[in-house]
Order: sequence, then structure tokens, then C-alpha cells
Amino acid sequence: MIGIDWGTTGFRAFRIGDDGTIGDRRSSPRGILNVPDARFGDTLREEIGPWLALGEDRVLLSGMIGSRQGWKEAPYLPTPAAPADVAAALTDIAFDWAQAKLVPGLLSYDAAGVAEVMRGEETQIFGVPALLANGGIACLPGTHSKWATVADGRIVGFATHMTGEVYAALKGHTILGRTMREGASDGPVFDAGLARSADPGGLLHHIFGVRAQTLVGALAETDAAAYLSGILIGHEIRAALASATGTTVHIIGAPELTRLYARAIEACGGVAEQHDGDAAAAGLYAIAAHAVWT
Amino acid sequence: MIGIDWGTTGFRAFRIGDDGTIGDRRSSPRGILNVPDARFGDTLREEIGPWLALGEDRVLLSGMIGSRQGWKEAPYLPTPAAPADVAAALTDIAFDWAQAKLVPGLLSYDAAGVAEVMRGEETQIFGVPALLANGGIACLPGTHSKWATVADGRIVGFATHMTGEVYAALKGHTILGRTMREGASDGPVFDAGLARSADPGGLLHHIFGVRAQTLVGALAETDAAAYLSGILIGHEIRAALASATGTTVHIIGAPELTRLYARAIEACGGVAEQHDGDAAAAGLYAIAAHAVWT
Repeated sequence: MIGIDWGTTGFRAFRIGDDGTIGDRRSSPRGILNVPDARFGDTLREEIGPWLALGEDRVLLSGMIGSRQGWKEAPYLPTPAAPADVAAALTDIAFDWAQAKLVPGLLSYDAAGVAEVMRGEETQIFGVPALLANGGIACLPGTHSKWATVADGRIVGFATHMTGEVYAALKGHTILGRTMREGASDGPVFDAGLARSADPGGLLHHIFGVRAQTLVGALAETDAAAYLSGILIGHEIRAALASATGTTVHIIGAPELTRLYARAIEACGGVAEQHDGDAAAAGLYAIAAHAVWT
Repeated sequence: MIGIDWGTTGFRAFRIGDDGTIGDRRSSPRGILNVPDARFGDTLREEIGPWLALGEDRVLLSGMIGSRQGWKEAPYLPTPAAPADVAAALTDIAFDWAQAKLVPGLLSYDAAGVAEVMRGEETQIFGVPALLANGGIACLPGTHSKWATVADGRIVGFATHMTGEVYAALKGHTILGRTMREGASDGPVFDAGLARSADPGGLLHHIFGVRAQTLVGALAETDAAAYLSGILIGHEIRAALASATGTTVHIIGAPELTRLYARAIEACGGVAEQHDGDAAAAGLYAIAAHAVWT
């Protein structure tokens, strides 16, 4: 089969054998925002044509490709959801070269009745066997970090933290960015930001410390971005762990980001395990196994 | 005397009688960022020339005009500070038409040793007689909201919350702003945002609710900005009040903003009293009374 993780800014494809092993892979920057005139079918064929020519005829796609801005909208599936539930809710799409199906995103409501949505992360979570077998917490750090609770083989609920996007907005469009200069993104100053996030005063106050500490000479301009990053990631992790102490956090993503988060989770008193982005392939395989193919 | 509140984006001048009453006033958008070629002396003379011609010869200036980006840097004075302490630390500036002095900003360190700075707000706080007489909490809402503790006639410490600037950055430069449309800035949706800020999950999570609730049709696009504003102001107030429950909060600023904050503070369990921007004139008068004029 062919598994596709198609997000807003990137495209990844896996050729997956009958036993779940990844036989081949490719990636490109052709995320859904970078596909002109919504020519998703043509783009897909260009990307995976050689594998289709080898006889592959099942394609499972997850991520923002199934959103309103993508190829076709795959309606959200409510939690709790197991791979089999997702497989029963796939959306067929017309693709002349193979059977193609879209994985739905998930929808959950928290105790206060506020909605949460994800698209693509559910697939990566299903790709971590330890989570499905034993339950636990999944963390997918990034622009919109996702934290999900897994129990009894199902995703039971999740929360999004806008950490990465807030970091970029603060750095690019507030006074905090004006005195920032290139520097290391981790190290002791990142840790100082993490520690700061445990103090009273709140996030909106802590971030002003980036400016005030620079003004009084207590923070170098080359350290300001790492300090801000530590404050934001610290707030994310402390809030997310508040309802999940003691549970192992399975961090899924690119190694440079999972390393940073593992360090931060441990500094905040948590236990972390890292998984790379191949979890997407494993998740697509797990879902495909329950799907009906003709 | 003449009192000047000269900030980053605005300029306000008061002609103040010997008994402290405001005899005349003027304001303009000529904040320090809008004064070409740092021609602050010329700008000041253009603004207050008619009053100088009437014989006024004492000018006291506060705000960002005393910053590194302003006319001349007036070094920060450490807290605790009373009006007399500030008056003893004024910085003279050369101005051919009258004696002119700059009010220093204040510098404080919190329990964790992190610096805080203000310029101009100290003057407005000194302009609220009830605060100097009885102590309490001052809140100056805005781009960078300031919360200060006053005791025994002195500002003993303070904290900045970047609420207004974060709101603008999120609205203008993240996915949250994309689906926002013009609507009322207060009302039930603002209150819902305030209430949301008391839930677990943290600020970085709560703000994503603006998007998720819009996606599932639970939040109108015309209500999204007010909901976001309620979440941010609620987080600010809850963090600021955490160390000051039961004390009256004296809110100082433009009436539309003090009204919004009074409503929010009361919704968060606090007690609020509103003061308008004329507090700047009263504060300049209070400081000037302790200053040495020739």
C-alpha cells in the first residue's frame, strides 16, 4: 500500500509492505497550500507515479488534505476513536490510478464543552504501538502542538496548544522580536525560560521579562529567543501535564523538536519517550488494515 | 506649571494651577515615534507655546520621552518609590523657554529576580489620592498592562502583562485572525472568554478554542475577537489578582478600557474602581510639589 501524510506545508509518502515495513519513501514541500489550482490528483500522481507503475493500488491519505481547504472534506469523527473506528469512516476520493481514501480528522469536546480538532496527528498517534497497547499521553509538538490521551487502544481526548505559532507571532510582530539576535535555541537560557514558566504571574507577564531582562542587561540579545521559547514551551507542558502527572509522554515528530520537548518535559517533572515521523507510516498501515478495499 | 505625559504614540499636555486644578489641556498624536529627527524641543514648544507666552516656566515631563528612544534617558529609579523619591531623581533637560525636567521610570525585581520596568505609569499611579493614602492595587490596562502594588504612599512593586500587544499579534498574524469579522468587543462572548480563562489547560490551549469553536459553528466569526479578548484579559486578571485578592483594584486609563477591565475584574471576583487619564496631571502635580525649581 501507499501511505500519504499530506499537511499544510509538506507532503510525505511511504511505500509500505504487507508486513508494515517501509519499503520506500519520499517527501516534498508540496503541502496543500503549495498546490496550485487545487490540482491534488495530478500532484499525487506525479509524486507516487513510479510506485503505481510497480502495481500499488491502495492509497490512504491523512492530514489537512482531508480538510475544507484540501482535496475533499473528510468529516471529523468524534472521540473516542480506535484505528478500526477511523477505518470505518474513511472518505473515498476519485483518483484514476488507484483506490484512494481519506482519513477523517478527530473532534473532541472538553469538560467545559469547548471543541477540539485534529487532522493527521491521530494517524501518527496510532503509529506508536506502546500507546495503543498500554495507553498514555501523546505529544506532537509544533506550530499547533497536540496533546492526546490514549486509553484502551483509543484516543479519548486531546488539546491543542498554539505554542509554535504564538512564538513566531511574538518574535515577528511584537516588541520582543526587535532586540532578538540569532543564537542557540536550547541550552541554559532555554532552561531558564522553562523554570520561569513555573513562577507566579502568568504567561502574559513572563514573556515581558524577555524585554525587561534585555533592557537591564540581564539577558543577551542572542539569548532572548531561546528564553522566550523556554517560557512558552514550559507553559504548554505544565498546563498539559497538570492533568497527566506520572504518565509517560510519547513525543512524536522531527528529532530536533522531540529532543527539545523531551528535555523540557523532564525539566517539568515528566517522563518522556521520543518517536520520529515514521509513526505516520505505521499509523496509516494500522488504519489500512481495518479498511475495506475492493 | 505644565505637565506633559509623552508616550510612544501620543502626547498630552496639562496646564495646572497652583492648587492642582487643570486649567487647560491639549493632546496630539505626536508620540515619540511620530517626532521626526528627534526634534523634541521644537515639538514641545509648538505644543505648549501659548502657555509659555502666558508666563508658565516649569515643565515636568513623564513617559517614554525619558527613554533611550526619547529626548534624553532618565535612568530608572528602583522601587519602593514615593512621589518625593521620584522628585529627587528628576533629570534636567535643556529647553530654552522654561525649566524642564524628566520623571524617571521605575525599576523593580520580583521574588525570582526578574526585572520589571515602567515609564509614565508611576506618574498616573501617584495621581490617585486613594492609592497613596490607603494603598492598594493599580491597574493600567493597554498594550502593556501594568499592575502595581502601592503601600505606605510608595509603589513597592509591579508587573507588566503584554495583553494588548499579544491580542494584536494573534489577531493580525496567526490563524485566529483569519476568520474574525468586526463585532462587539464586550457582551456575553467577552464574558465567555473570561470564564474560559478559569478552566484548566492554559492560555496557549484556550486561544486555540477561538479557531476550533469557529470551525464547529459554536462561535460566530463576528464574536471571535471578543472571545479572544476575554480569554487574554481573563488570564491577565486572574494571574494578577492571585497575589492580591480582596484588595480594591484602581484602574487608570481611557474610559472604554477601564469599563471593560472593571467588568472583567468583577467577573473574576475582584473589586474595581475606575480613574480616567487625568490621573497623569494629578501625578505630575504631586511630583512637581516635591521638586526643586529655581
